[in-house]
Amino acid sequence: MFAPSKKKIGMLGGGQLGRMMIQEGLPLGLEIHTLDPDPNAPCASCAKSFTIGSLSDFNSVYAFGKTMDVLTIEIEHVNTKALHKLSENGVEVYPQPQILETIQDKGQQKIFFRLNKIPTSPFVLTENKSDIKNHLPLLPFFQKLRKGGYDGKGVKLIRSEKDIDDAFNLPSVLEQFVEIQSEISVITARNKSGEIKTFPAVECQFNAEANLVEFLFSPARINESIISKATKLAIEITEKLNIVGLLAVEMFVTKKGEVLVNELAPRPHNSGHHTLKGNVTSQFEQHLRAILSLPLGDTSISFPSVMINLLGEKNNFGESRYVGLEEALKMKGVHLQLYGKNTVKPFRKMGHITVTGNTLEEAMEKASLLKNKVFCMGSETRNTF
Amino acid sequence: MFAPSKKKIGMLGGGQLGRMMIQEGLPLGLEIHTLDPDPNAPCASCAKSFTIGSLSDFNSVYAFGKTMDVLTIEIEHVNTKALHKLSENGVEVYPQPQILETIQDKGQQKIFFRLNKIPTSPFVLTENKSDIKNHLPLLPFFQKLRKGGYDGKGVKLIRSEKDIDDAFNLPSVLEQFVEIQSEISVITARNKSGEIKTFPAVECQFNAEANLVEFLFSPARINESIISKATKLAIEITEKLNIVGLLAVEMFVTKKGEVLVNELAPRPHNSGHHTLKGNVTSQFEQHLRAILSLPLGDTSISFPSVMINLLGEKNNFGESRYVGLEEALKMKGVHLQLYGKNTVKPFRKMGHITVTGNTLEEAMEKASLLKNKVFCMGSETRNTF
Repeated sequence: MFAPSKKKIGMLGGGQLGRMMIQEGLPLGLEIHTLDPDPNAPCASCAKSFTIGSLSDFNSVYAFGKTMDVLTIEIEHVNTKALHKLSENGVEVYPQPQILETIQDKGQQKIFFRLNKIPTSPFVLTENKSDIKNHLPLLPFFQKLRKGGYDGKGVKLIRSEKDIDDAFNLPSVLEQFVEIQSEISVITARNKSGEIKTFPAVECQFNAEANLVEFLFSPARINESIISKATKLAIEITEKLNIVGLLAVEMFVTKKGEVLVNELAPRPHNSGHHTLKGNVTSQFEQHLRAILSLPLGDTSISFPSVMINLLGEKNNFGESRYVGLEEALKMKGVHLQLYGKNTVKPFRKMGHITVTGNTLEEAMEKASLLKNKVFCMGSETRNTF
Repeated sequence: MFAPSKKKIGMLGGGQLGRMMIQEGLPLGLEIHTLDPDPNAPCASCAKSFTIGSLSDFNSVYAFGKTMDVLTIEIEHVNTKALHKLSENGVEVYPQPQILETIQDKGQQKIFFRLNKIPTSPFVLTENKSDIKNHLPLLPFFQKLRKGGYDGKGVKLIRSEKDIDDAFNLPSVLEQFVEIQSEISVITARNKSGEIKTFPAVECQFNAEANLVEFLFSPARINESIISKATKLAIEITEKLNIVGLLAVEMFVTKKGEVLVNELAPRPHNSGHHTLKGNVTSQFEQHLRAILSLPLGDTSISFPSVMINLLGEKNNFGESRYVGLEEALKMKGVHLQLYGKNTVKPFRKMGHITVTGNTLEEAMEKASLLKNKVFCMGSETRNTF
């Protein structure tokens, strides 16, 4: 017997991922309590209750979590010591704290791949800037901060020895630059009883300037054998981690047709936003099903789709307003998802648009029209150079 | 330029229709403030703000409404005097107060149909029980209370003179019993600039005992010429009323193939619940677009669908729990929408399930399997005879 109101659900983080989780929880009769430091976070207006507090502070996370039956996250940078203690005290914490610890640290992630023979690009770990000089044979490489990076922040491309002057002076992963054909993502879900389902692979196209996903294409335009290899890898990682909840597996397809695992996210992910309109079950509903021990939903594609991230325009600040949205809303198969952010910053993720079509080509055509029409501006512009 | 947070939106009523409106407003970046007398109403946990207060009291509606830019309803039984005054004071009130007054009173509705030559079943208006005896030639007929009836309440079938003893002693419409083939509904939407869109007609199947919609079939299995007649009628009424917002037009198709308008609802309606999963734009999003002067969305069917109302079981009370839902959630194309009601009563609307398929027959087959599997029970049972 299912009694949705019986389990008190808490979520660490109140950003757009959390907001879409709440949105997709409503049809399941779920009410989600949220902890976030920002009183204007996207979840503040729609959570069952909204607690203002730090996600990295033991006491704040513990105090919030101990009143819950099930605790989940929408961002992985949270205090895992508190989660371990909550878990010992009988709160169901999904994803499990030790998985968060592995994923929070990009160095640990890489070590996990190596130990489990998961193909990934060659790497070394460094402690500080001067250490980097010991690894010149790896050049060119990306320097990624082991902790705290997100949305393209905390990453530097080091092309040659002289770029090292500008490198971060913090513990990092140096990841060899690999010539890639495309970036793809497979999102899996696993529930407590061990049922696993995967979403069809998508192709991610990045905004070079912001290093953020700009477009998603669903399904990926990649040959079947590569997709099948990628999907198997994603399932293998899910099983090895024994995760309960969603796992987004970002992968590179190299020019030689290899599949290399890039990064993991143990939660709903930007590469699954199209599922709200393009797939039978959304990634958000799937995550909730997984952590509540419900059967996982059908992940089939309902309509081929393109997702466009709506980022704050360069140099724009202040109150957010959208240009071109009315026109976009007139187009068939154009679905808007705004994140409820009242202020804009350059490249801030403000929302996304999912364009569906009978074919991917049709959706792509509409998406390319839209891309030059819809903008998120602010009430002020300032030059940020 | 669209700035969703610029307009403060208020909604009178905090039931399931309001909850689904909030759910569908989230992707548009909208935040909706709600007024309802019940602190446990379905919107209490997800509205931007939730004010406890009467919907029929002038002061309570006025005080709530005067802080809003746009005011709408999810139930038509509200104090319209307050709405008139709010409208005079510059609040955008949609649907317009005079339309609510016409629709609140089933007698006025019938007069509106007659004045506008809209086909409807023959009727007379009566003041009290003894008045009914003056209309025996109309027998058999339904007695419908002019005001306050909803969800099958306030309706009696009077078959013969002796049934009049049990009739209501209040102002009523006596509506001649008509042999009907099927009941259909067409939902329209109109925005301020006069754009009108209609959802494809659906067929409604009623639970005889509760006099409530039990199944919807989309699209309706009715011949094209009848559907086209029904759709034209719905548009005609929308234009005559000049309504801004949604209008649900419930109609009878008689055995002779006539289309008779039964009742109007100036808001999202039970006969449009399948649109959340079966149509490109949902009725809830469409209502919000209409009242916010946005372009109306595409109403096409994405998937043929069957909607099943999930009603509280007979004799069940207390805390709600659901039997068979886990099994239902395993089935492909089965979409749950619970209303967040923690207590159940016999025939209370607790949620609905939309079953989609590649054909209506496929969806119907799955729906008939489900119908005998999913139940909403309560923590107590009592015989209510």
